[in-house]
Amino acid sequence: MRLIVIGGDAAGMSAASQARKRRSREDLEILAFERGDFTSYSACGIPYWIGGLVDGPGDLVARDPATFHRDGIEVRTGHDVTGIDLDARTVTVRDLTGGREFSEGFDELVYATGATPVRPPWAADPAGGIFGVQTLGDGAAVNAWLDTDPKPESAVVIGAGYIGVEMAEALQRRGLRVILLERAEQPMSTVDPDMGALVAEPVRKLGIDLRTAVTVEGLETSNNRVRAVVTDAGTLPADVVVLALGVRPNSRLAEDAGIPLGSTGALATDLRQRVIGADGVWAAGDCTEVLHRVSGRPAYVPLGTHANKQGRVAGINLGGGYATFPGIVGTGITKICDLEVARTGLSSREAELAGFRTVTAKVESTNRAGYFPGAVPMTVKVIAEQDSGLLLGAQIVGRTEAAKRIDAFAVAVWNRMTVTEMTGLDLGYAPPFAPVWDPVLIAARKADEAL
Amino acid sequence: MRLIVIGGDAAGMSAASQARKRRSREDLEILAFERGDFTSYSACGIPYWIGGLVDGPGDLVARDPATFHRDGIEVRTGHDVTGIDLDARTVTVRDLTGGREFSEGFDELVYATGATPVRPPWAADPAGGIFGVQTLGDGAAVNAWLDTDPKPESAVVIGAGYIGVEMAEALQRRGLRVILLERAEQPMSTVDPDMGALVAEPVRKLGIDLRTAVTVEGLETSNNRVRAVVTDAGTLPADVVVLALGVRPNSRLAEDAGIPLGSTGALATDLRQRVIGADGVWAAGDCTEVLHRVSGRPAYVPLGTHANKQGRVAGINLGGGYATFPGIVGTGITKICDLEVARTGLSSREAELAGFRTVTAKVESTNRAGYFPGAVPMTVKVIAEQDSGLLLGAQIVGRTEAAKRIDAFAVAVWNRMTVTEMTGLDLGYAPPFAPVWDPVLIAARKADEAL
Repeated sequence: MRLIVIGGDAAGMSAASQARKRRSREDLEILAFERGDFTSYSACGIPYWIGGLVDGPGDLVARDPATFHRDGIEVRTGHDVTGIDLDARTVTVRDLTGGREFSEGFDELVYATGATPVRPPWAADPAGGIFGVQTLGDGAAVNAWLDTDPKPESAVVIGAGYIGVEMAEALQRRGLRVILLERAEQPMSTVDPDMGALVAEPVRKLGIDLRTAVTVEGLETSNNRVRAVVTDAGTLPADVVVLALGVRPNSRLAEDAGIPLGSTGALATDLRQRVIGADGVWAAGDCTEVLHRVSGRPAYVPLGTHANKQGRVAGINLGGGYATFPGIVGTGITKICDLEVARTGLSSREAELAGFRTVTAKVESTNRAGYFPGAVPMTVKVIAEQDSGLLLGAQIVGRTEAAKRIDAFAVAVWNRMTVTEMTGLDLGYAPPFAPVWDPVLIAARKADEAL
Repeated sequence: MRLIVIGGDAAGMSAASQARKRRSREDLEILAFERGDFTSYSACGIPYWIGGLVDGPGDLVARDPATFHRDGIEVRTGHDVTGIDLDARTVTVRDLTGGREFSEGFDELVYATGATPVRPPWAADPAGGIFGVQTLGDGAAVNAWLDTDPKPESAVVIGAGYIGVEMAEALQRRGLRVILLERAEQPMSTVDPDMGALVAEPVRKLGIDLRTAVTVEGLETSNNRVRAVVTDAGTLPADVVVLALGVRPNSRLAEDAGIPLGSTGALATDLRQRVIGADGVWAAGDCTEVLHRVSGRPAYVPLGTHANKQGRVAGINLGGGYATFPGIVGTGITKICDLEVARTGLSSREAELAGFRTVTAKVESTNRAGYFPGAVPMTVKVIAEQDSGLLLGAQIVGRTEAAKRIDAFAVAVWNRMTVTEMTGLDLGYAPPFAPVWDPVLIAARKADEAL
């Protein structure tokens, strides 16, 4: 039996590792193809590498091809899978170094091709200095560009979501003048606008020139270098442009092979990560859609934490075990300098789109007992279903010891708790860690009162 | 209608405040008696006050009698309720300043007398320098003693639980030589011994002389001052002795009034905090027992966070609203210097006593992504029911950003999750906050594998 894995990052290699744990080399040969140079890396660490907080790329690689080889998993980096023939059970592979194309047979296939940064038509110019940030290769390219002569001095980051804000901070740390553009009225549109507004000022205080309600219309390039970003609010010179407009699933290869895609455009799988409508094909990671447990609908939420879990589930099942990926509740956190932003469940807009009628409550509290040294404010917002009081989502903005409090909400959302029941939760209390009513409980109380 | 509240700290005054919110002064007169000098204070903050981290006592008081008066709640501090007559609906009160004794009638009664540090027979000597730490008055007494002439230089803290360890650190901060005695093999017996062992070395590194497996046999006093602690491992000179052997519910007054106590010796209430077997009497806080939601049995767990919740529940119901206190899951956290210790659910021993057959899993991970600056180790232990995989408890010891992770476990225990289901939880991930598999998830995975 032979397993071929397309994509050598978290999802694909977790699947390979879990399958290998359970099945001997004699029983199952495992061969993985990775287009880039690196395997099993933390893409989430790239902004910190570029910002100089973390050594890269080595520190961001959890396991390299030599380690996999030792464990009985063959990985070919620099190899791009260009076609899948489900009937013949073969993939076509191009060696990106030599240019040679060849075909390999498989019994089982793991499709873990990841995602690609959205590149709008106005960013089609292949000039240097325009980057998406998705792979370690992208990170290396940004770093190389920052060291070119003449040294880039100004950057425009387009899109003020997680990656955009993290990249803006990273480039600012590297000494560039940074403009951060956002089409919406507030940055961080993964949270409600009133919570995003709490992020705007701290980002500006970092020295980042955040401009909201700005639409990008094009890029100016010359001599194969980007020169400026053209917007409806003027033209902004830029030696570096980062596209942080989200990512799209790399599902083309599957589509070309006749594999039906889900409604989000990503691959759809069953609970065991088997691709629906394609026998013997598994999928995991940023190329797949997931069940959102609150809306009850498929969602496209490409995050490393889901990729790792899905890969593990696929691998356990491939190895003859049993595991399921039960879906997500929409948790996400980020840190910009000492500012922490977190969310789980549905945002107000998402809840409305899903059909919920909601009540919201927002409270100001502190991370520690108010009298304890280092106590700083945090804001917590709770979204609940009207009448039933079902917790639908929560958002947090704070300075320190704030973001991970979202986990208590995430577990509560997972378990379909009401805000009323949440008011009784037995959360950890001691003055260095929380006021006697934890901000999570205060927010639940206020939402309960608002019902 | 008149409501009398016995005890002016968190539980009693939360009840008073919530009742007042819902009923006018004309409808309900509220009169509270407090034996000490302070109302609504954070007893948990006392060690930090003594350690000099926090200004006291003012900063530890959330609301003082003048504020309550303004809000239509009369509080008499320095007044000790010495008797309750349930038939006559009166309490007997002694003015501790004037010595006058008088009687007051009530329609409804809130019993919120708190707890008293355990004082074994060998500590009966009323000599100066021997302290329990439960009230702000106790804290003030310790502070005054530390400033006596000759200045105390050596302290022995008896009992290495939360309060003992916190007080040892506080006294050490104040420049005293501190010996911390524990009868068990390891400190912090609220967690399993293998987790307590992780606390021993850091406590010693602080310069605290922790001695375990030592039994105290008596105190030596002279000239009305404590001089030494006599143990089975020698006599230890001490200018200050702190008794940190736990607390007992102040239930004598209730018992004398013929109110039946619960099996733990504390007052037993229904879900709305009505004392069982005493019409029109409510109870809340450290004098009551609570339902432990995991063992399904009554437990005595005197903590400020429960006191506040119970008081709020009693007050809402007294005010004509509806609220219940649904019990606890045994969450507790503390910080010793930068060491963080947390637990929830049942410990291994408690689980065994409750009748569970358990499997445990223990993992070492880090608070942040391993490659991220400031990543430090943390240890997580999970206790699950054999076969069913029901999460029974969890414990955490770490250096920073560790203890509050217990909340995710606490919400999971609350919702009767299995460790298998926990492996899929959608917890917050970003490199500054967690490895891609949060330590909570790694521990759940390992427990799942151990089933």
